[in-house]
Amino acid sequence: MYALANQPSSFLDAICSPAELKRLGISQLQALAGEIRREIVHNLNKTGGHLASNLGIVEITLGLHHVFKTPVDKILWDVGHQCYVHKMLTGRRNQFDTLRQYKGLSGFINPLESEHDAFVAGHSSTSVSLAVGMALARDHLKQNHKVIAVIGDGGLTGGMALEAINHLGHLGNDVLIILNDNEMSISENLGGISQYMKRIKETFFYRDIKQKIDQIEDMLDQVPLTPTIRQMIELVKKQTKDRFDTPGIVFEKLGINYSGPIDGHDVGAFINALDAVKDKQTPQMLHVVTQKGKGFASAENDAIKYHSVSAFSLEPPLSEKVEPVQPTKPKAKTYSEVFSQALIDLADLEPNMVAITPATAEGSGLVKFGKVYPDRFFDVAICEQHAVTMAAGMAKTGLKPVVSIYSTFLQRAIDQVVHDVAILNLPVIFGIDRAGLVEDGETHQGVFDIAFLRSIPNFTVLAPKDARELRNMLYTALKHAKGPVAIRFPRDKAVDASGTAGNTTECSFEEIDYTKWEFDHRPLGVTTQGTVTSNGYGSANKVALLAYGSTVDTVARALPLMQAKGLDPVIVNARCAKPVDDKFLSQLFEQGFNKIVTLEEACLAGGFGAAVLEWAAAKRLRSPQTKQPEIACIGIPDHFVEHGSRTTLLKDNGLDPESISEFVLSFAGNGVNTI
Amino acid sequence: MYALANQPSSFLDAICSPAELKRLGISQLQALAGEIRREIVHNLNKTGGHLASNLGIVEITLGLHHVFKTPVDKILWDVGHQCYVHKMLTGRRNQFDTLRQYKGLSGFINPLESEHDAFVAGHSSTSVSLAVGMALARDHLKQNHKVIAVIGDGGLTGGMALEAINHLGHLGNDVLIILNDNEMSISENLGGISQYMKRIKETFFYRDIKQKIDQIEDMLDQVPLTPTIRQMIELVKKQTKDRFDTPGIVFEKLGINYSGPIDGHDVGAFINALDAVKDKQTPQMLHVVTQKGKGFASAENDAIKYHSVSAFSLEPPLSEKVEPVQPTKPKAKTYSEVFSQALIDLADLEPNMVAITPATAEGSGLVKFGKVYPDRFFDVAICEQHAVTMAAGMAKTGLKPVVSIYSTFLQRAIDQVVHDVAILNLPVIFGIDRAGLVEDGETHQGVFDIAFLRSIPNFTVLAPKDARELRNMLYTALKHAKGPVAIRFPRDKAVDASGTAGNTTECSFEEIDYTKWEFDHRPLGVTTQGTVTSNGYGSANKVALLAYGSTVDTVARALPLMQAKGLDPVIVNARCAKPVDDKFLSQLFEQGFNKIVTLEEACLAGGFGAAVLEWAAAKRLRSPQTKQPEIACIGIPDHFVEHGSRTTLLKDNGLDPESISEFVLSFAGNGVNTI
Repeated sequence: MYALANQPSSFLDAICSPAELKRLGISQLQALAGEIRREIVHNLNKTGGHLASNLGIVEITLGLHHVFKTPVDKILWDVGHQCYVHKMLTGRRNQFDTLRQYKGLSGFINPLESEHDAFVAGHSSTSVSLAVGMALARDHLKQNHKVIAVIGDGGLTGGMALEAINHLGHLGNDVLIILNDNEMSISENLGGISQYMKRIKETFFYRDIKQKIDQIEDMLDQVPLTPTIRQMIELVKKQTKDRFDTPGIVFEKLGINYSGPIDGHDVGAFINALDAVKDKQTPQMLHVVTQKGKGFASAENDAIKYHSVSAFSLEPPLSEKVEPVQPTKPKAKTYSEVFSQALIDLADLEPNMVAITPATAEGSGLVKFGKVYPDRFFDVAICEQHAVTMAAGMAKTGLKPVVSIYSTFLQRAIDQVVHDVAILNLPVIFGIDRAGLVEDGETHQGVFDIAFLRSIPNFTVLAPKDARELRNMLYTALKHAKGPVAIRFPRDKAVDASGTAGNTTECSFEEIDYTKWEFDHRPLGVTTQGTVTSNGYGSANKVALLAYGSTVDTVARALPLMQAKGLDPVIVNARCAKPVDDKFLSQLFEQGFNKIVTLEEACLAGGFGAAVLEWAAAKRLRSPQTKQPEIACIGIPDHFVEHGSRTTLLKDNGLDPESISEFVLSFAGNGVNTI
Repeated sequence: MYALANQPSSFLDAICSPAELKRLGISQLQALAGEIRREIVHNLNKTGGHLASNLGIVEITLGLHHVFKTPVDKILWDVGHQCYVHKMLTGRRNQFDTLRQYKGLSGFINPLESEHDAFVAGHSSTSVSLAVGMALARDHLKQNHKVIAVIGDGGLTGGMALEAINHLGHLGNDVLIILNDNEMSISENLGGISQYMKRIKETFFYRDIKQKIDQIEDMLDQVPLTPTIRQMIELVKKQTKDRFDTPGIVFEKLGINYSGPIDGHDVGAFINALDAVKDKQTPQMLHVVTQKGKGFASAENDAIKYHSVSAFSLEPPLSEKVEPVQPTKPKAKTYSEVFSQALIDLADLEPNMVAITPATAEGSGLVKFGKVYPDRFFDVAICEQHAVTMAAGMAKTGLKPVVSIYSTFLQRAIDQVVHDVAILNLPVIFGIDRAGLVEDGETHQGVFDIAFLRSIPNFTVLAPKDARELRNMLYTALKHAKGPVAIRFPRDKAVDASGTAGNTTECSFEEIDYTKWEFDHRPLGVTTQGTVTSNGYGSANKVALLAYGSTVDTVARALPLMQAKGLDPVIVNARCAKPVDDKFLSQLFEQGFNKIVTLEEACLAGGFGAAVLEWAAAKRLRSPQTKQPEIACIGIPDHFVEHGSRTTLLKDNGLDPESISEFVLSFAGNGVNTI
């Protein structure tokens, strides 16, 4: 069941816990690595998941579990998406058919799932800080175990990892950092740390010292030297070059003892290297070079050879993430694609527009923009803080920066949004991708952005109801925004994506007054101005549904269900959560709508619903005679949302058409309108 | 007026703009530096302000304005509190008597104040990101000017500065970084970057290579060498040592051309160094060593010699910040002092409690704790992100970490609060200092923490009404918290600080049920349970004031004003904003309180008032028959709050007793209760 049909997995079958691993010799571990790779490829073809990063870390995981002893020793996997091998070795092999499924095996690490998972992770660059905290706690509590942080070169570009390394160097506590240098993070990795090897020849000091040593050698040619001296000089030259070919000097300067680099696919060499550092009680960094996707080609060949499985769809692309094979996957454009296409379409109209992404060019669809406009595209690596403040500097100097960022990663740059963008009211546009519920577990839910951004002065916080509106919001913001504008959209196929294909005839844009709300559905008896006439609209409960962003479409799908029960509410595309549309809301109140429901795909606390409640309280204060409708808020309750498909999670949180219809019908009570 | 009485300021008097500076020679600039120092000391003795950092940067500022030309060239002052000299030279000298006063000269840089201020700053470590953004914009827009970031060694420990340097090294654009190495940030500076010089002897590579070269030399002693060869070998050794004594290699590895270190108080040397790098079109870093407070002692001697001013209170302490001389400064304990004293008093009771601060040990009063418990005190430098995630790692491993952090700096670590603390529901305690309005300008207002933290699941968000409650909250949280707890308190003297002096007889603690609200004032006719009897309490409008944190005391001071007008409201100490006290609120609603006012010293959007509105909407939904009171929210409106004294700013924002009394009286309307 777990292995490919004709391929025995004799070693893997014998592993029930990491303890069994310790009995294996190097050649057995190598064989085990092959079995693991085959099984990963096999499993992921069914469930999807992070393929390349897990294939790259097989030997590192084997080596760590061979030398150390979890759960006593703590292994902190940065980001946590490279933990599949670790999970297979720690008793979760038989759950892989539920990987990244609702109530199934998490795609990230989580101590609630296994005691072998030392912490939770999903965002990058946290592992060294956690390791420092755990090492300090261990030493304070007189415990005796190792703390190991496994971090990629991509994770190392995140500022907080550098903060932690710097602090660790100062403290000097016993922490082992495995630098998994795979020369690739989610996107192509940028920045000095991963590029030092290419730049080394330009380093002035190295050039100077090399030149001087050469000169000395030339001069020494004139004197008789023993072979020993010559060898010694060669050794110094070689050592100097070696050290300059690694980042070792940087880390040693920061107080971390560096060793490596070593081949991370040579399990014997890796175990030897671990043995050499494992008993040292000072900060150690072991630099390991690996290849993402290592061994995939042969696994794939094996697969063909032994199985001829036609459904085997992993090839040709070897990407970081493998989406599960879905029989009837709709090919409609996603909001990410609509957004990135809009940027391309707008680039000519707005020559000063530039796009910025913190290592999420692929996920947010910006790769294409970067290819068409390389000079106007900035992937800053996993540096959300720097991305936002850099955009502020650009805006202050006359560019029109668009920061494409996932909602969950925007959390890393909230201070920069306040301090560098909002205080000076700079026109930085934020394309907030994956806003709302996503199929990536607790760490990636994009549910806080409305509450956070709404509290910051000068912000306009938008959410489009469909593809066209997303395009027009972006267009209008680029043209007219005098301050920061956030446009949030979900990780989903776009509603009404037709007409946004980006070909020349269809890439038109329209200016819209995006701070104004609009009717999305008006029952008979409500005019375009929102005035309720006696014609047709019942005099009993008048219900208005204020839907924000993705919920406009959901409510539209709920409408027939409500109409079937005799309720025909007004539906409003409340596309701006900050500011709320004072005029529109006043009109609703004054026209006697007595039941109002807000809807948003975000946390209820402080969100769009709260904005309407705040507005209503203020309205009552300034117009005490205006009748107060009853207001109910639909959104995500006060809990972290687990892993599951968007459909499942929306339903769980009452945000599917059926739940909404049921809620509204109950809220509207007995006196529903007769259509 | 500007200079000390008998000290002429002939050079300074002649400077109306930076242009005049360019005509001065080195010796004249040196004389000018002396005049500037005298004037800074003189001015700050009247107004208070950042003394040491400005005395340290006199020659750097003179040199930059001598070589570059603002506002065409952009100088980005990191943090911005070292900008006094820059302000004096750019037309603001005659406004220094209004420094850091309401509507006066800002203590930080701000382009709204002068075109010579390229950006706003207040928080640390943003300047390099801004410089990268501005340089990219300049190059895209084909502009022609220099972009210069001036950053201290303290600022460089902040992760986002490292993100930016790394990115700049990759981009290769023309940016000049002045590294002002004064070996001290707000607190004593920690971390590898500023300590490399002390650790250099332990760097393995340096030790190895030095050893090898010594060996070669020994062997060469046996062969006849020319003096030239010997000199050359000496040169290589010296050069290697020099390079290893600076951080140059680290930055060169990251793609930044490094030069220095040079003496930052030698204006001639600094100008020469600027001249050497100013026309290079690649990333440059010039390392300048300065001394905070440089020249103060002599200025002080001069002052005594020429003035014998008895009010001259700057000596003996030369601290980073000088508070203005206040004739009748009350010596009551601040909340910071109460909090840090409570930590000391609790340390014995909770041996696993540790305290963490991101470079604000002095401001938050933790210096004393660090002296008493050095092993349980962690100043991580300006690394808010690392501080929070490290605390999460500690909590997971069994320690009880208390993170002391300013509200405004907590914004730097919001993602870590969500991702590393809240998801696993870890008992990390946040002592949120300077929550509310502060006398430090837009960048430092602590007004967003309630809205941010309230939206995060698992959090308990507390604010004490006085010193004793702060102590008891901390005590109870340390003893019983099962998840994260935030305790916010203002930058102010503590209410009722008696009994918290920390001596053995007075340092008692009491467990409190801090998620429960309490009556702070009950008019006749309201029982301790909140039941309204017919005895005495009028049947007309029943008014309840729900005060959170600092506003409890303000409302108590407003009470006599309201009572004088015939209104005797219930006052509630609503000490927990998340969760709100369901039982208490239900009781108020059911007892017929029909006018409810929430009060908080924080932004209204998404804050404590919003929490009560959200609760009321949910209550109405589940108990439609319960009568709905009218709810009004008092807090900080949707704007950035400028510089001013707390008293002034509270009044401006309607949070003083008079404004509150006036608002409540008007809100309560005609049918006020007769007492």
